Amino acid sequence: MKGTGDTIVAIATPPGEGALGIIRLSGPKAIEITDTIFIGAVLTREESHTIHFGQIVDPEKKVIDEVVVLLFKGPKSYTGQDITEISCHGSPWILQKVLDLCLANGARLADPGEFTMRAFLNGKMDLSQAEAVADLIAAESEGSHRLAIQQMRGGYSNQIDDLRKQLINFASLMELELDFGEEDVEFADRTDLIKLIESTQVLITQLIDSFKLGNAIKKGVNTVIAGRPNAGKSTLLNRLLNEERAIVSDIEGTTRDTIEEVVNIKGISFRLTDTAGIRDAQDQIEAIGVERTRQKLSQATITLYVFDAEKATQESLAKDLVDFIAADTALLLIANKMDRNPYGTAEEFIPESFPRDQFIPISAKNNMNIEYLKDRIYDITVGQKLDQQDTIVTNSRHIHALQKTQESLARVLEGFHSGITSDLIALDLRQAIHHLGEITGEISTDDLLDNIFRNFCIGK
Amino acid sequence: MKGTGDTIVAIATPPGEGALGIIRLSGPKAIEITDTIFIGAVLTREESHTIHFGQIVDPEKKVIDEVVVLLFKGPKSYTGQDITEISCHGSPWILQKVLDLCLANGARLADPGEFTMRAFLNGKMDLSQAEAVADLIAAESEGSHRLAIQQMRGGYSNQIDDLRKQLINFASLMELELDFGEEDVEFADRTDLIKLIESTQVLITQLIDSFKLGNAIKKGVNTVIAGRPNAGKSTLLNRLLNEERAIVSDIEGTTRDTIEEVVNIKGISFRLTDTAGIRDAQDQIEAIGVERTRQKLSQATITLYVFDAEKATQESLAKDLVDFIAADTALLLIANKMDRNPYGTAEEFIPESFPRDQFIPISAKNNMNIEYLKDRIYDITVGQKLDQQDTIVTNSRHIHALQKTQESLARVLEGFHSGITSDLIALDLRQAIHHLGEITGEISTDDLLDNIFRNFCIGK
Repeated sequence: MKGTGDTIVAIATPPGEGALGIIRLSGPKAIEITDTIFIGAVLTREESHTIHFGQIVDPEKKVIDEVVVLLFKGPKSYTGQDITEISCHGSPWILQKVLDLCLANGARLADPGEFTMRAFLNGKMDLSQAEAVADLIAAESEGSHRLAIQQMRGGYSNQIDDLRKQLINFASLMELELDFGEEDVEFADRTDLIKLIESTQVLITQLIDSFKLGNAIKKGVNTVIAGRPNAGKSTLLNRLLNEERAIVSDIEGTTRDTIEEVVNIKGISFRLTDTAGIRDAQDQIEAIGVERTRQKLSQATITLYVFDAEKATQESLAKDLVDFIAADTALLLIANKMDRNPYGTAEEFIPESFPRDQFIPISAKNNMNIEYLKDRIYDITVGQKLDQQDTIVTNSRHIHALQKTQESLARVLEGFHSGITSDLIALDLRQAIHHLGEITGEISTDDLLDNIFRNFCIGK
Repeated sequence: MKGTGDTIVAIATPPGEGALGIIRLSGPKAIEITDTIFIGAVLTREESHTIHFGQIVDPEKKVIDEVVVLLFKGPKSYTGQDITEISCHGSPWILQKVLDLCLANGARLADPGEFTMRAFLNGKMDLSQAEAVADLIAAESEGSHRLAIQQMRGGYSNQIDDLRKQLINFASLMELELDFGEEDVEFADRTDLIKLIESTQVLITQLIDSFKLGNAIKKGVNTVIAGRPNAGKSTLLNRLLNEERAIVSDIEGTTRDTIEEVVNIKGISFRLTDTAGIRDAQDQIEAIGVERTRQKLSQATITLYVFDAEKATQESLAKDLVDFIAADTALLLIANKMDRNPYGTAEEFIPESFPRDQFIPISAKNNMNIEYLKDRIYDITVGQKLDQQDTIVTNSRHIHALQKTQESLARVLEGFHSGITSDLIALDLRQAIHHLGEITGEISTDDLLDNIFRNFCIGK
């Protein structure tokens, strides 16, 4: 990891032509370097939070651009250091030239996320807030945006910090006891400590449980459409997409090898995958297809099982549900082609035990009940859970740290029950405190920081 | 054309993810609209040229982003109107959301270039300066950038304005004479007027002549490499490109159907085109190739004629020069493969009349004399002319207006010589004044403005 003592510079706006483009500097020489290439006010003499018109010039005083410079003096700035922002015409040539001039005058090209890393290192935000900045920029739906901005504005940092401080307090008292050695004093009230640990465990379990939902919101809910051939799966897919054509896009995953369609329901992205029709495999090729469907279904967050209300039998339905649908997946049974079955009650197919509100009669062809279907898809995957959940974890690093904390806390309790000596218990307690501290960055290593900020934009 | 009475809004930064993204508003309600969606300072009560931290919120007060708002009050702003710039995290989702909020609160989506059009309409810049803003953003080389920024900072506007005012003065005096009807007074000194017109003609001719250079600098100098088969044309092309690999790019023209390579020499882009070897056509296919080469050569700004110093004959050279090289094209004769001809003087091939400084012995293979060749390419196309030329016109609309002015002025002079009545002469003079006024926008029509600003970025 590089230090914060030098002055960094980067183009802060997306690449390409635009009306405006911004060069950003942060560091002890940010203002001085900008002053060297700027004709207008003498920036070193100006107040913080001021705006200055002028020109950027090269060493031969040739004008490169007419610009507006913003001046922020540390510590009241994004990074906590002196910052200048040079707002240029949005020409890639000009931005490159101004960047080069800054580099030639002593600035260093910023690494990805280095401005935000400095903000973290200077105590302007904790690590989970810093991580949320990248999530915020990448958020593509209202749901993922909401989670990112909650985390950026504090999120569960305070809760975690609070618990951590209480645990530190107990750990210190226990360590103090150890200093007294043989005297057998007890500064740390064991009953209170056990209570604290148990309530901490409850909170952490909630946070860990929220990750499945958080991850689904952040990355889109994995939605698989399955059913027998000609049940109307593709028609349903198109219907779901057509209704939302404006906000539908193809997402070609870098780590996936299929192209999925995305539909946005109430601000949440649902990644729709169609599957080959479920049927008895007649040959090896078909068997491979069935196996692939089974695999997709095993990864689904929600399965939309579609059947033909006119032709399906109770047997075929029961068989498919047993054979294909994973127990921990949300499921909707969709009776399609209700337009052809006006007098029948598609419900007759549904197994007794199956909750009636997970059964939905539709006609994909006639656009019947599609809006209701979408509401149900949203409700059983996200809506009901969002209502129950205050705080949602979206970051897998945090989950890892929470799991480690949970393990350490379990060992502490186990230690008490099995009567292990205080020094060993204190060690496990310190471990738990360490892992909690990793989330907000009280504990961090250069490697960890490099890993986190590597995925940021340059200039952020 | 739309008026300037409403408030416009646009995303001013290039599309895509970045550290920062900016929404810009201009118009009488810019500050009020921003205030409606901004939590922080009450912007309507703040001074011009101030910076404000805060949050953008939706109608339910959910935070969309933490932002910095810049406040510029008209007339001291880019457009001359009240302007706000909302600096958000560079997330396309957030920018779209903030844009939508501005639209919902009474702003209108800006047309391309509408901010700059307002700057023009409010007298913040003349039309040729406004046009230069788009050129500046699109400039891809030091040369084209320099011309654009000169024009944006005034360029020949002052000269033209000055001439125009003098012509207006004379026209008014002549029109005053007409009011006196029969009295045969002469307020406008004919000798002075003729002098003024003649000096105006000299200036306009210079400006018109500068366009060929200006256009070449703006769009890249059309450089064609020609020669017999195996003279080493492609090796030379690669050598010119290799030397500049870092700043070489493929430009796929939207109006051209070939892909050209671009090499940057001293800040000027040279568009290099290779051609099929010149040879006696044996069949129809070859005849087509030769014809195509001839066509490319006819469009060249500079031709690099390459020959094999070991094998070429004086006859082949003389024949090709006569057959293929257009008279008004800059030309360099390049004796290649000098490494194989160490004792020969390639000059023996060169026709007596051919200027010796347009003859360059090289070895493309051994990288011999390539730097000198590049210097010469630059000098005879751009360098010598740049030295002679103060002001360079790059805009074809300006050239059209200058030509029209020239025609009208010629008619005025002709009128004097042939003794046409003053009222007709005054009419031609008014025509000349009109066309000069089109350049700086003293004279403009809605159609003209729409045409000009249509090619701008949104948000500029």
